[in-house]
Amino acid sequence: MKYIEIFDSTLRDGAQGEGIQFSLVDKLEIVRALDALGVAYIEAGNPGSNKKDMAFFEEMRSVPLQNAKLVAFGATRRRGIEAADDPNCRSLLAAGTPCVCVFGKSWTLHVTEVLRATLEENLEMVRDTVRFFKDAGKEVIFDAEHFFDGYKADPGYALSVLAAAANGGADCLCLCDTNGGCFPDEIYEMVSKVVARFPEPMRVGIHCHRDTGNAEANSVMAVKAGAVQVQGVYAGFGERCGNAALTTVIPNLQLKLGCLCIPPENMGLLTETARRICEIANINPDAQAPYVGSSAFTHKAGMHIDGVSKNSISYEHVSPELVGNERRFLMSEVAGRGALLAALRKVAPELDKNAPEATQLVELLKQMEFEGYQFEAAEASFELLVRRRLGQKPHFFDLQSYRVLNEQDSGCTAVVKLSVDGRTKLSAAEGDGPVHAMDVALRKALEGFYPCLRKMRLIDYKVRVLESRDATAAKVRVLIQSTDGADIWTTIGVSANIIEASWAALTDSIECKLIKEQGV
Amino acid sequence: MKYIEIFDSTLRDGAQGEGIQFSLVDKLEIVRALDALGVAYIEAGNPGSNKKDMAFFEEMRSVPLQNAKLVAFGATRRRGIEAADDPNCRSLLAAGTPCVCVFGKSWTLHVTEVLRATLEENLEMVRDTVRFFKDAGKEVIFDAEHFFDGYKADPGYALSVLAAAANGGADCLCLCDTNGGCFPDEIYEMVSKVVARFPEPMRVGIHCHRDTGNAEANSVMAVKAGAVQVQGVYAGFGERCGNAALTTVIPNLQLKLGCLCIPPENMGLLTETARRICEIANINPDAQAPYVGSSAFTHKAGMHIDGVSKNSISYEHVSPELVGNERRFLMSEVAGRGALLAALRKVAPELDKNAPEATQLVELLKQMEFEGYQFEAAEASFELLVRRRLGQKPHFFDLQSYRVLNEQDSGCTAVVKLSVDGRTKLSAAEGDGPVHAMDVALRKALEGFYPCLRKMRLIDYKVRVLESRDATAAKVRVLIQSTDGADIWTTIGVSANIIEASWAALTDSIECKLIKEQGV
Repeated sequence: MKYIEIFDSTLRDGAQGEGIQFSLVDKLEIVRALDALGVAYIEAGNPGSNKKDMAFFEEMRSVPLQNAKLVAFGATRRRGIEAADDPNCRSLLAAGTPCVCVFGKSWTLHVTEVLRATLEENLEMVRDTVRFFKDAGKEVIFDAEHFFDGYKADPGYALSVLAAAANGGADCLCLCDTNGGCFPDEIYEMVSKVVARFPEPMRVGIHCHRDTGNAEANSVMAVKAGAVQVQGVYAGFGERCGNAALTTVIPNLQLKLGCLCIPPENMGLLTETARRICEIANINPDAQAPYVGSSAFTHKAGMHIDGVSKNSISYEHVSPELVGNERRFLMSEVAGRGALLAALRKVAPELDKNAPEATQLVELLKQMEFEGYQFEAAEASFELLVRRRLGQKPHFFDLQSYRVLNEQDSGCTAVVKLSVDGRTKLSAAEGDGPVHAMDVALRKALEGFYPCLRKMRLIDYKVRVLESRDATAAKVRVLIQSTDGADIWTTIGVSANIIEASWAALTDSIECKLIKEQGV
Repeated sequence: MKYIEIFDSTLRDGAQGEGIQFSLVDKLEIVRALDALGVAYIEAGNPGSNKKDMAFFEEMRSVPLQNAKLVAFGATRRRGIEAADDPNCRSLLAAGTPCVCVFGKSWTLHVTEVLRATLEENLEMVRDTVRFFKDAGKEVIFDAEHFFDGYKADPGYALSVLAAAANGGADCLCLCDTNGGCFPDEIYEMVSKVVARFPEPMRVGIHCHRDTGNAEANSVMAVKAGAVQVQGVYAGFGERCGNAALTTVIPNLQLKLGCLCIPPENMGLLTETARRICEIANINPDAQAPYVGSSAFTHKAGMHIDGVSKNSISYEHVSPELVGNERRFLMSEVAGRGALLAALRKVAPELDKNAPEATQLVELLKQMEFEGYQFEAAEASFELLVRRRLGQKPHFFDLQSYRVLNEQDSGCTAVVKLSVDGRTKLSAAEGDGPVHAMDVALRKALEGFYPCLRKMRLIDYKVRVLESRDATAAKVRVLIQSTDGADIWTTIGVSANIIEASWAALTDSIECKLIKEQGV
């Protein structure tokens, strides 16, 4: 089994993604999550260019890691001064990490036009900087920036840059497709040449960007060509289109190509680690992400559901449990009776699939889907509907009336009248819009009876117009996502009137919370 | 220059994506957008399994296409009956498209375990079904489902399935990595073998899924191995992790590998077509998408901004304008100004770009875009805004007040008070929902003054929640599309209150019609 070093750069290259910003606490949490997963290296910042990164490295001195080595990242020394006198090199050393990643130019265009140095000067800068860190006792990974573009432009020079790093004592030569413009066959060919020229014990690494959609494919092809280190960003974000997603690279290598990337017993952590890191980064996890996305093992076509039910490999290249994910069957117009029945029995396991209630429920659900309900996205409403029909839903409140008044420039007012156990409650609330006003009024009316509702809040609200033929008279589907801090659930409402649809989804959401609280 | 047929399956395989559902009108709009872009084939549904798809194909009979051929998709005939008697085959034929895509099993496991047919029966089903459609005068593309898994399990059988389709008269053999589990080198090798076995004039196609993150890379490798057709989904959504994104495949092939996929003059439409299709599908476009994502040419690291400023190829593998996208620097405010100025001068060609009004308008537009306006999709509102600011908009009416009252079970009432030339008009109307009621009340008030409004009607209404952080208090963007039979125009409103946002878009829509009528 070939061991592949996984080098995560979520906190350095990942932080270059649009909209990504990490606090010190965020960074510490991400380091802990990656270390627990078992990656080999965690590149956590550029102390020369970012003071906050230096504060983080100081903090990290007292945080022991179980699996990973911490890495600081920085450039080669400037022209005309010694590495020991270069402020960036000194910061990089001061970060106090066991390993440093030094990046240098390997494309002549960058040397002359961006760095504005001579080709010979650049070679000296690379060699001296690597030697400076080796003399200081560091493990040194040399990142050859734009290696592949450089090789295409001038292969001799690109290789001489790697030779300069090797002469300086580099432990690993990492080849970067910085602009992300290369194709898998090109990567394979160029990595093969580098591996032949710099054989073991030199280690060759790969660092890919997603600008042509090839980052993960290129990473795998580099490994097939002899690379032993893969650099990437766990959830794939980063500058421009992002970096190679390790959530894809790790299972591709470990489950499908027989490499060892992380301890096998940790593979089941891949999905939750992805969700955790996206939550810390405050981005929506990509539902379509290979292996770890919420849709990655989600089947919608009736034919696919039928096939997977007979044999999961018929439409799954690996099993979801291997990466800690789960299989889902969507209920939709294209799903058949089998999928609806399966979903039904998750809510009511005692229900006989041939019982008349089951048949009636399936018919009702199909009719509702035809009218615009979409239960695949609203499992909570689905569950409520089934419980209601089967007489399994406790009675929480009786709605007597609600009304919503919107006046130009003076906003929206909602009035709700309901009763709980015969006690009537009338409440009014203002809001930014009708849904906000209804939500506030409804809670005001209910919180006295059900204090647990104080912990609950809405986190997402989506509207979809279903048949746009009649425009404003068309049906709308409203999806509301709610949380109580522990769980997240989604409810649905469909009506020609957006206010009625929102009201239905709102009341379902509250009933779900009340059912959860009762432990039904 | 090698011509590659681009086969888009947004409306068939794309519709299998979680949360994707198209109305008939959505489908027609997507067909128009793809045809205008210049793809070769548009696969638009599975008439045998979905009644709504059949209604769409009937509608399409009266819609001429400029560039694309329409394709309907369906399975091989069932065992034991003739294709002519098979209801699915009959539906597929009844769809009336010039081209059909017939899919069949090429993996022995699927034949025996899912289809529960013998291997020989399956070959007959493939050959007979293809022949049935050829005899009916159709172009036939045979989709070999699970071809690569099938080839790995039993290469002889997988090839014999292709041979059966070829014997039936198939025009193209498309190889599907249905489970998305293959790597680029495997795809290259297997496609090469198929191309050698089925040489020209037979065409070989490729259809990839994203389950290992390799769909786009695999598509390119298949072309390098001799495939001449690439199937994918324009914006990459689809079953599980999605299909190969044509937004990546087309520019990879056309800009980087010298192939011809779409008319070169249409390459600049790639980005806006992606945004349009995502808007119709009501999904957020992937900001990180190669080429067409809003972050695809967005530079954040200071070093990258410096490099790109010196020479754009230093951190860009292609130029954004080639695909209709734009470069943005996150730490500077210069982004976007050029594009806004260009749009401004389309409405007001006499405006000097250095005039203070121009500068003020650009600032205003930037501020409005920041607040959630998106003028790309609402040129009519953009034009109105510019005319208003430049004092070029005639005065049509003064709104005095409007209010909307919604009562449970008794629907929605809107009251509008406005004046035209000093004459005040108060009108009230009931509607299915608030927008419908406002629309009817507003016209009732105005039609006496402006009879031309009788010819106008709303044809589409879309709502998008912009920031989901505060859920019901978040901002909403409303887009309204209107027509007077001759033209179609789109207007926009943004507010925390969906009623106010809808009101703004409604009044803009009416003012646009009045301006058009006056020939301003």
